[in-house]
Amino acid sequence: MNYPGGLKKDCIKTRTYSNRGMNLEWDLNDSNEYYLINNIAVIYKKPTPITINKVDYKARNDAVIKEAHFKTPSTTDYNGIYKGKYIDFEAKETKSLTSFPLNNIHKHQIEHLRRINAHGGIGFIVIRFTSLDETYLLFINDLLEFLDNNTKSSIPISYFKEKGHIIKGGISPRLDYLKIIDKEVFI
Amino acid sequence: MNYPGGLKKDCIKTRTYSNRGMNLEWDLNDSNEYYLINNIAVIYKKPTPITINKVDYKARNDAVIKEAHFKTPSTTDYNGIYKGKYIDFEAKETKSLTSFPLNNIHKHQIEHLRRINAHGGIGFIVIRFTSLDETYLLFINDLLEFLDNNTKSSIPISYFKEKGHIIKGGISPRLDYLKIIDKEVFI
Repeated sequence: MNYPGGLKKDCIKTRTYSNRGMNLEWDLNDSNEYYLINNIAVIYKKPTPITINKVDYKARNDAVIKEAHFKTPSTTDYNGIYKGKYIDFEAKETKSLTSFPLNNIHKHQIEHLRRINAHGGIGFIVIRFTSLDETYLLFINDLLEFLDNNTKSSIPISYFKEKGHIIKGGISPRLDYLKIIDKEVFI
Repeated sequence: MNYPGGLKKDCIKTRTYSNRGMNLEWDLNDSNEYYLINNIAVIYKKPTPITINKVDYKARNDAVIKEAHFKTPSTTDYNGIYKGKYIDFEAKETKSLTSFPLNNIHKHQIEHLRRINAHGGIGFIVIRFTSLDETYLLFINDLLEFLDNNTKSSIPISYFKEKGHIIKGGISPRLDYLKIIDKEVFI
């Protein structure tokens, strides 16, 4: 089983009903696996970027990393291909009931998505309001429009309701975000 | 400075003239940076996939990974977007003068590139024969054709000369592999 960010079970919370809203990454990985198995799209989460400081080379094929640090990501978490188009997005959760704090997304991640868009790819963010159990897809253009016209440090949920697209939860896939792409991009 | 695979300088060989043939990854990262800065393409190397076993949470933003292992990658090392097209490739070096040993590429990486191709992306491998200082780009279709018609455990260099495309070394970018894509894909 693949745990988020390559973490082993001991390191992360177990998925239970009490924290099911906390598992956006889980839902996305599950959906991407569904897309892959059903030959719909090829989208993966990138490995967690780290800086390795110490490695023990016990044997030729048995290296153990003894010291490493988490690194600020220079791009987004997910990318891949869907219907011939390059797909790229970042996914974040917030416990807030009213807005998404912008300090959750790095400036260079937004810049990366802007570039993707300029090169003809499909860039967006997926934001889950865990306390409301609502998940929105917001295209990079709409995110940039907000940033250009606001000095606020967070995006109010009303903006997601107005410009974003709600992703309905399901069983298989758990989060059919490509349905939004179908409706909004491949018309 | 970004070292290959996120390794710090102490962990890897220093780039010198004596091992300059050994730095395909370096040349590709340099070329991708050139493409990015000049707004030609957005292509990145993915972080090295690892499995984390132990993490010390000293402070809120100061987690130190104390034990981790390198994981077999499920996809390829590089992907991104060029002229609206999804690009995906794996890069490998060999010291052999005569052939590229196939055990250097995992079966699921070949399967991944096959999928990319089927979904309308551009998939290929970049192989450097370090002793000859020759670097070839081989499209996934030509790799699959070889695999379908051979039971050999390595691809002879003659096949790269016949079906592959030599990538000439330069100064900026050091390895202009997108020139091959221009010539072969965007005709």
